[in-house]
Amino acid sequence: MQTRQIEKTISVPYEHRTYFTEGVFQKDNALLASLIQRSEQATRVIVVVDESVNNHFTSLQDSIHAYFDSQPDPIHLAAYVCYPGGETVKNETTYLESLYQHINDAQLCRHSYIIAIGGGALLDMVGFAAATAHRGIRLIRLPTTSLSQADGGVGVKNGINFAGKKNFIGTFAPPDAIINDFNFLNSLPDAQLRDGFIEAIKVALIKDAAFFNEIEAQANLLNQRDTEAIQYIVQKSALFHIEHITSCGDPFERTTARPLDFGHWLAHKLEALSEFEISHGAAVAIGIALDVLYSQWAGHLDSSEAERILDLIERLGFETYTPLLEAKSPTGQAEILNGLDEFREHLGGQLTISLLKAIGDAFDTHSIEPKGVEHCLEALKQRSAHRPQPT
Amino acid sequence: MQTRQIEKTISVPYEHRTYFTEGVFQKDNALLASLIQRSEQATRVIVVVDESVNNHFTSLQDSIHAYFDSQPDPIHLAAYVCYPGGETVKNETTYLESLYQHINDAQLCRHSYIIAIGGGALLDMVGFAAATAHRGIRLIRLPTTSLSQADGGVGVKNGINFAGKKNFIGTFAPPDAIINDFNFLNSLPDAQLRDGFIEAIKVALIKDAAFFNEIEAQANLLNQRDTEAIQYIVQKSALFHIEHITSCGDPFERTTARPLDFGHWLAHKLEALSEFEISHGAAVAIGIALDVLYSQWAGHLDSSEAERILDLIERLGFETYTPLLEAKSPTGQAEILNGLDEFREHLGGQLTISLLKAIGDAFDTHSIEPKGVEHCLEALKQRSAHRPQPT
Repeated sequence: MQTRQIEKTISVPYEHRTYFTEGVFQKDNALLASLIQRSEQATRVIVVVDESVNNHFTSLQDSIHAYFDSQPDPIHLAAYVCYPGGETVKNETTYLESLYQHINDAQLCRHSYIIAIGGGALLDMVGFAAATAHRGIRLIRLPTTSLSQADGGVGVKNGINFAGKKNFIGTFAPPDAIINDFNFLNSLPDAQLRDGFIEAIKVALIKDAAFFNEIEAQANLLNQRDTEAIQYIVQKSALFHIEHITSCGDPFERTTARPLDFGHWLAHKLEALSEFEISHGAAVAIGIALDVLYSQWAGHLDSSEAERILDLIERLGFETYTPLLEAKSPTGQAEILNGLDEFREHLGGQLTISLLKAIGDAFDTHSIEPKGVEHCLEALKQRSAHRPQPT
Repeated sequence: MQTRQIEKTISVPYEHRTYFTEGVFQKDNALLASLIQRSEQATRVIVVVDESVNNHFTSLQDSIHAYFDSQPDPIHLAAYVCYPGGETVKNETTYLESLYQHINDAQLCRHSYIIAIGGGALLDMVGFAAATAHRGIRLIRLPTTSLSQADGGVGVKNGINFAGKKNFIGTFAPPDAIINDFNFLNSLPDAQLRDGFIEAIKVALIKDAAFFNEIEAQANLLNQRDTEAIQYIVQKSALFHIEHITSCGDPFERTTARPLDFGHWLAHKLEALSEFEISHGAAVAIGIALDVLYSQWAGHLDSSEAERILDLIERLGFETYTPLLEAKSPTGQAEILNGLDEFREHLGGQLTISLLKAIGDAFDTHSIEPKGVEHCLEALKQRSAHRPQPT
């Protein structure tokens, strides 16, 4: 028979909405309630909170209940659930299954809401549950770390880990809204607060030299936890990420669009090698340091610019070296080089790695020379050995 | 602080491509190979086959290997995997986990392909794995049943079951392509072949009286397994479904768009009540019969039209009654009435049920009267008791 074909194009529109505020659950803050679309049925909401956030903000649960009760048209808080943050919540499927069960028990429908409050890992797991239960329940993300506010929290991805691979399972699913409440950042320990700055540096390095200058100029203020400086850097980093996602024409990376992932091939591998003991921010700092040195080694980046970048990373308190970099694969080559192929596999298609020509000026390459990587590893090791210990 | 907001719209384009052919794995059939976009890496493919299809077409695996090997630019068949069809494959997560493992072992990336060959349930489970591994591997669906060729196989959904609820977990994810190979239909037992006709009747009832007339005129040919009649009805039904999805402006049902689901609220409930012993087609036949009688009871549909519809359903060999309809909930009401709320919960928002004004002319209602349903159940029971047994 003759083959018959029907070819159509469909286009699916999404709103991408991000808000910056403080005190989202204060009764006089109308933002969150204004984002919730009331249905004919009582609007049902499940709130999922990172355990560490719940433990730190001891009145959070009461505030949330009071907030929803105080609305002119009350919102039914069907469940308030806590899960651990960090990669644990993405590694163990028990948390995902527990959340599906809560969604079923609370009889959420596709017009109900899940509000996720926590760091990037919790947002990823909850986002995956929300995107897949009933084929998509509305999700409002409240990132509570500088890292998730500056970067992943405003993105359109979610995921859980499988077979030791980060985000092996996930979807592209824009949340209904993102609320960056800066008050959450006050509670973060220094190391976790710092993690957000490295994603700001990343986006500055590949997109905007002026932003890099600003981070450099404000480094001391950031180290002193200056509220204004932190909010400025986090917000500006988030804006660059939103701009990238919403203007690239391929937000779900279905063809050739790339995420903003300078330094991330190594970061993902280090996280896995450390069994997720190394934080994402700490891993990205090392990943950026390596790709900066590699850009220099390959003749693209001036040594003075490379030095400026490494200096800023170190000034903000990041390590640029870990003994994990020395792990060898059974064939004797650096284990981290396998990260290149895993990175290619995760993003699909040809290997594509961002390198720098200058601060604020990145380009893509499709091959990385192992001997260059090994040279840069040695340089980082030497640098680390001679680095004065922070006072 | 003042709340700052960033609101953008993103639009994600998809191709929706369906092909009708015969003998897709014959070496001279160029269709499938023409759809596979070659990458710089060897193009990797995993083929997942419904066990019953694999068992019936004993040379299928060899043909598939030979087909890919014979391409000018060979395609690397990284794995050939068989799973049971039917709801088993959606109920037990072991199959999903097994497929994720195969995807990992075969090092598929987002530009690789998964080819799913089977009935609707297998396509749903494989579709979910493909949509979520690496956040989306390209999927080519080869529906092998009349039901999946005429209906779900050309749709944009996938899913697995959870907590006894059908498709509780799933996504909207248009496959890269759909190939309806009519040769697969030849192997179907009568009861399974018939299941596709009920979805054709469904779409005719709500969309097109002329198509209903055609199915009625060809009922005898369909019962005799006349190839031309079967292909005509299956193809036309598929076209209506494709048209609905691609022209509704809301293919992912994110706002108010509804799927073509006349008779389906009851069908889903019956499938669950029977623990998926009743096939989807058999359940839809009863669901349609009930909603036709209810449309008549509520004064919308003429009794002669209702009779014509029930007569056609019966002529094609479907039952319009099952003792499961008599199941009572603990409160003493008909258990199936709980199906209304589960249906609302699954689709989200307000309860919306399609009823008929006439053949080819449906409308939505937002409430169903229990006493009307009970009246119609009794009518179906009486009708069944007096129906001559098929010879």
